[in-house]
Amino acid sequence: MMNELKILNRLLPTLTQTPDVVTGPGDDCAVLKASGELLLLAAVDQVIGGVHYYSGITSPAAAGAKLMKRNLSDIAAMGGTPKWALLALAVNGHSEEWLLEFCRGAHEAGAAFGVPVVGGDLAELENKGEAGSLTILGEIAASEVILRSGARPGDRLYVTGEFGNSLTSGHHLNFTPRLREGRLLARKHFATAMLDVSDGLLLDAVRLACASQVDLVMNPGKVPLRAGAVRETAFSDGEDYELLFTVPQDRCGELERDWPSDFAPLHCIGTAEQGNGEVRTPAGTILSRNRKIGYEH
Amino acid sequence: MMNELKILNRLLPTLTQTPDVVTGPGDDCAVLKASGELLLLAAVDQVIGGVHYYSGITSPAAAGAKLMKRNLSDIAAMGGTPKWALLALAVNGHSEEWLLEFCRGAHEAGAAFGVPVVGGDLAELENKGEAGSLTILGEIAASEVILRSGARPGDRLYVTGEFGNSLTSGHHLNFTPRLREGRLLARKHFATAMLDVSDGLLLDAVRLACASQVDLVMNPGKVPLRAGAVRETAFSDGEDYELLFTVPQDRCGELERDWPSDFAPLHCIGTAEQGNGEVRTPAGTILSRNRKIGYEH
Repeated sequence: MMNELKILNRLLPTLTQTPDVVTGPGDDCAVLKASGELLLLAAVDQVIGGVHYYSGITSPAAAGAKLMKRNLSDIAAMGGTPKWALLALAVNGHSEEWLLEFCRGAHEAGAAFGVPVVGGDLAELENKGEAGSLTILGEIAASEVILRSGARPGDRLYVTGEFGNSLTSGHHLNFTPRLREGRLLARKHFATAMLDVSDGLLLDAVRLACASQVDLVMNPGKVPLRAGAVRETAFSDGEDYELLFTVPQDRCGELERDWPSDFAPLHCIGTAEQGNGEVRTPAGTILSRNRKIGYEH
Repeated sequence: MMNELKILNRLLPTLTQTPDVVTGPGDDCAVLKASGELLLLAAVDQVIGGVHYYSGITSPAAAGAKLMKRNLSDIAAMGGTPKWALLALAVNGHSEEWLLEFCRGAHEAGAAFGVPVVGGDLAELENKGEAGSLTILGEIAASEVILRSGARPGDRLYVTGEFGNSLTSGHHLNFTPRLREGRLLARKHFATAMLDVSDGLLLDAVRLACASQVDLVMNPGKVPLRAGAVRETAFSDGEDYELLFTVPQDRCGELERDWPSDFAPLHCIGTAEQGNGEVRTPAGTILSRNRKIGYEH
């Protein structure tokens, strides 16, 4: 049986906080000072040992970092600024060191983007296993929110970074959440719709197409491939944590000119057209009718 | 393998939202309209099958409701108003119906207090098991926050409700989070320190005493017992989800006069005195040095 108090006595002093945390971990709730005029963003995502990382092989710090970064990627996908995180961990048969390392990984990945872990919970699973759950909170001005539903016929379809082979390459652990890129797209009102690609480019493209009630015409030859990736599986591998977004045609020149050279590379891979949620090739093949279009985690 | 999309298609339409939810479940993040002048409260807590409820015996709806209410109790313990919840569920070997019932239980327990589930995640555990994690968000005016650390020598020590026998009596599932009571204590600035008793009256009293750097002198004969409870274990059973709080002596008359008759019963069980975090009886026995003082979940 884990000794939660003993672990917390070691853990809590390591969780450095930010000035907008009025009361950090240790009371019944964290007390947070939000910016009054902004909207609040909130999302929760999990990593499961043996599903999202190799239980017993991936280091607990890398697993914890992945959990934090998956959630940061959701804030990036809205164009927002991440602010605070809450971490819940349920394990069985793990050492105190394992738990502290998992939390350190999450803490450091958050700290790199100014995000403290302001609350959490540790519990013991009935059987062997590892389940980490993290809630991310962020902020954004109402005029800057980028939903999945705003793409319009005529918009160009863009991605950041590269796709495919995320597991073998280690990208699924080593990726950088595209927060700077998301903020630029929101602040300058470039993107009409956006999401982060976690379940595969094609499946997530279908989600954006359905939410916006457009068709997306995607040129497979223009999708940038990660080293070692092949075109056929790059569309469905998942865990790319890149941004997929649409931009009005008359803003594309400005976007490409303004895009900083140290940002993730920008690629135009297609267009939005009138339709009802399909993803097609320029030749008319309907990619979204493939049976296996993405990986559900 | 669970079909998350299929489950979400059935689940999401049942999750009614509130007007302050700008964008509910289905995008990368929920978008929430916080009240600009208030502070934000945030906490996360879990229920684990076989630990916090009888896996396979307790209904999934009751387990989901318990998860929501445990978290609402944390908002009550700060004196706050609960606003929004995010739910993550990791299971293995469960039917779609089980998952939907768990979520229905959480949703309905939240809806009873005006709290929508604004986001969530479903994942599959590697081995058999059930881990539910819920993040609760709430709001409170800065002047009303009740921390654990504000008790002063001379304050009287109060509890709501009754203690002990929470498991056999079913109280650990059927309890009502003391949100109305917490709000009254905060709004009228009655309580100097407060927490909710989840790990046993004695252990949680020690926590309050340590955070406030006072001793608490508790009269065991004055602790109200739940039907079927015995005094010896009532202090350590846990899962009471009642409020434990301190009130300045000159406000106690007003508190007892103002306490509505339909609120949980109010009991004065002791006083705060100068000290450094012990819990003592009036006769001087130091209860906080008992080896087994509470149950850690």
